Amino acid sequence: MLVIGELINATNKSVGQAIRTRDRLFIENLVREQVAAGADFIDVNAGAGEGVADEARAAMEWLVEVAQEATVKPLAIDSDSPDVIEAGMKKYRGKELIINSVNAEPERLKGIVGLAMERQASVVALAMGKEGIPDNVQDRLAACDIIMKHADRLGMKAEQIFFDPLVLPVSVDSQQGMITLKTLERIKARYPAVRTTMGLSNVSYGLPSRPLVNRTFLVMAVYAGLDSAILNPLDARAMTLIKTATMLRGNDPFCKGYIKAHRKGILTE
Amino acid sequence: MLVIGELINATNKSVGQAIRTRDRLFIENLVREQVAAGADFIDVNAGAGEGVADEARAAMEWLVEVAQEATVKPLAIDSDSPDVIEAGMKKYRGKELIINSVNAEPERLKGIVGLAMERQASVVALAMGKEGIPDNVQDRLAACDIIMKHADRLGMKAEQIFFDPLVLPVSVDSQQGMITLKTLERIKARYPAVRTTMGLSNVSYGLPSRPLVNRTFLVMAVYAGLDSAILNPLDARAMTLIKTATMLRGNDPFCKGYIKAHRKGILTE
Repeated sequence: MLVIGELINATNKSVGQAIRTRDRLFIENLVREQVAAGADFIDVNAGAGEGVADEARAAMEWLVEVAQEATVKPLAIDSDSPDVIEAGMKKYRGKELIINSVNAEPERLKGIVGLAMERQASVVALAMGKEGIPDNVQDRLAACDIIMKHADRLGMKAEQIFFDPLVLPVSVDSQQGMITLKTLERIKARYPAVRTTMGLSNVSYGLPSRPLVNRTFLVMAVYAGLDSAILNPLDARAMTLIKTATMLRGNDPFCKGYIKAHRKGILTE
Repeated sequence: MLVIGELINATNKSVGQAIRTRDRLFIENLVREQVAAGADFIDVNAGAGEGVADEARAAMEWLVEVAQEATVKPLAIDSDSPDVIEAGMKKYRGKELIINSVNAEPERLKGIVGLAMERQASVVALAMGKEGIPDNVQDRLAACDIIMKHADRLGMKAEQIFFDPLVLPVSVDSQQGMITLKTLERIKARYPAVRTTMGLSNVSYGLPSRPLVNRTFLVMAVYAGLDSAILNPLDARAMTLIKTATMLRGNDPFCKGYIKAHRKGILTE
């Protein structure tokens, strides 16, 4: 299970401030903490630059420079804007890279897939088009089909794609948890070579004890076939559940990973 | 999700002693504690009477009398011996009843199904024959098929059956967790009217942090379609995960059960 550390995101107030003030030390620490906690990739989202395109690009360039100085782990360059992603990629010297994200909108697809092809990067592909997140399995799969068709036509390999089945709050519609997980299962069945990823926290919106809900959903998602999660690696319980669920899913031969984590004292109940 | 409280079992040392010394108060307290914690059924296992059949029957008779005095919740009468089960049933005045358990052995099937038919009781049916727990999905399903065929011939309704897909330790074979859960999914698909139940603790045998492993497995099993669990209802975290997983599985309309549990202050992270 690949863990993509989500903490360097300008929508978080203190991170946004650190990016605006170019607080290098703050960002470096947050990179290192996530890596120490077991993150395999570090997501970097520099925000929208208050709507000013030049600012957004400059912020991402700075963020990529700082983050890659702090670790040898690869980055996930995260923006709604292909221009901002491109700006970040130009500064990035790493080999492995995830572009976060694309969806089924044709123009966006063309731009992002083109960028990914230049560097053999992986891409997080959201199971939605421009109308937003569909509330049902069928329409999410239809978005995945569009993405696969475009990616294939442009020569991208299935292995480069991380499909995100997306999640809506169960407090709004109690079937949404299952719709996400059934979408995940169907993606894995239909496209065996792709990988899957997910941000979890939407599922618990509007409910009490949100971390409990998110973690429980994470365990179900591992069973349903999740290959990667975008989450806070400093949440020791979530990291513990990933190890435990991976073992129970039969993906930890001889339970070696689980037992090693126990010996290191990093299992947190 | 039906919770069958597992604590009144003679294989537990202090419970075994309480049964031998006919310590009524000890048993009553253990019944009441489980009911207060949310158990829907109370399992009663009086042990094998050190191999003396009369003793085993007498112990079960006493245990059923004491347990049913302590609660209005129904019992699950639990023994390897049809004679002991029959003895317990004769003392039992409740309407609802679970007989725990039967397997695919023809003689055992005939006896237990006959007893269940007398009282319209439900039966826990283990997915195994006399050779022990099969290590694969196919042989467990074959045992279920035998049980269904016999039950059907004797006029038992599918609704009376709780299939237990059984679990072997992942420390011995890392695929066993998935074999259990895939058996569970296949049972639900093949026999939609039956229910499923499971004891969890075997899965973690030989591993550190066993409660963590058991609880993680429980969440996966809820997603795979588990209808009932045989567990310790005093484990507040397990009970919390049942509520959370039931909600995420879409079986808690408007998240009412989860929110109610939060308001009562019984969610334990």
